[in-house]
Amino acid sequence: MKPALVIGRVVASVKDPSLKGVKLLLLRCIRWSGETLNDYLIAADSVGAGAGEKVFYVEARDASIAVHTNPPIDAAIIGIIDGVDFEE
Amino acid sequence: MKPALVIGRVVASVKDPSLKGVKLLLLRCIRWSGETLNDYLIAADSVGAGAGEKVFYVEARDASIAVHTNPPIDAAIIGIIDGVDFEE
Amino acid sequence: MKPALVIGRVVASVKDPSLKGVKLLLLRCIRWSGETLNDYLIAADSVGAGAGEKVFYVEARDASIAVHTNPPIDAAIIGIIDGVDFEE
Amino acid sequence: MKPALVIGRVVASVKDPSLKGVKLLLLRCIRWSGETLNDYLIAADSVGAGAGEKVFYVEARDASIAVHTNPPIDAAIIGIIDGVDFEE
Amino acid sequence: MKPALVIGRVVASVKDPSLKGVKLLLLRCIRWSGETLNDYLIAADSVGAGAGEKVFYVEARDASIAVHTNPPIDAAIIGIIDGVDFEE
Repeated sequence: MKPALVIGRVVASVKDPSLKGVKLLLLRCIRWSGETLNDYLIAADSVGAGAGEKVFYVEARDASIAVHTNPPIDAAIIGIIDGVDFEE
Repeated sequence: MKPALVIGRVVASVKDPSLKGVKLLLLRCIRWSGETLNDYLIAADSVGAGAGEKVFYVEARDASIAVHTNPPIDAAIIGIIDGVDFEE
Repeated sequence: MKPALVIGRVVASVKDPSLKGVKLLLLRCIRWSGETLNDYLIAADSVGAGAGEKVFYVEARDASIAVHTNPPIDAAIIGIIDGVDFEE
Repeated sequence: MKPALVIGRVVASVKDPSLKGVKLLLLRCIRWSGETLNDYLIAADSVGAGAGEKVFYVEARDASIAVHTNPPIDAAIIGIIDGVDFEE
Repeated sequence: MKPALVIGRVVASVKDPSLKGVKLLLLRCIRWSGETLNDYLIAADSVGAGAGEKVFYVEARDASIAVHTNPPIDAAIIGIIDGVDFEE
């Protein structure tokens, strides 16, 4: 999984019927340190993430599985990052 | 999913029989800002996209699932981008 | 799917038994304009492509599905490119 | 599979329910020589790896299969690297 | 599939139980011309490859299928490269 920053919700009136009801968010890729990169992707949201939050997303086939209705997607947010415990 | 610009329809008289009737479009990769990149890919269309439209596509196994007949493809257009709602 | 140029047939006397009878071609990656890149890959052929032809190939799981016998491969040629229709 | 260095445990109070009980570790990518790179990823742990250990992880669909409960993840640690036997 | 050079056998005493009996080799990525690159990966061996041999490997889900016991791996050697026939 990779970290990213939520930018906003993607608006798409014409889309695959299977995406109806799927919240699609625009993510900006970031380094772990928080530094933003010039790469963006669109991911489905399965955890209720909002703009400005640092999340992690899963790619490829598993993204589809993360979302209830199994839409044909290749990226899905599966958690909001609080931080890292270095004791582990 | 990633954003791209539709360039035109790919013409291929010799192709896998499973691709008969599948509309294959040439996409040019773009940055989210709209800036075009020197990367192209061929994707199946499942939403009726046309040249000049800004779309988003799904990659890998899920691309096949997005198209009715399940052809062996690794990229499919699944929506046309209207914009982003930053309030979300 | 991505465009590539067929270079020749890969000869491999020691290989996975499931590859027996599968035609493996060496492909050179190209830009859409035709400019050759210094990247090569080996792909199964399902359309009868030959050296010098400009083809498009599918990657990952779907490559296996494109070939009759479902060998464990991650790239398969699925069409020969004639050109692009920009009217679409 | 690729080598990486374990940095610590990722803390995420909001996450997909299927990740409950899955240990998520922050990995830093490394060259085989041990040189650290500026790339990080989050992977599930199936072998009991701890901070500072040099591990190898599997990506994509197989990551999910490596973890008992089949969560929708795309990276999982599957071994700790002791070294390489060059006699083989 | 991509070409690579076999470096040696990876020693890992702590690993996923499903990897017991699976021969894991360290591969160094190469250009088709034979020039070595500074990228390495670990792949399962299904053809009896040894150090110094030029092989080709399959990635992602199909790697698992190439190995008898279906371990959760994302790379497997499936052939040893003899050369290329340009007449094809």
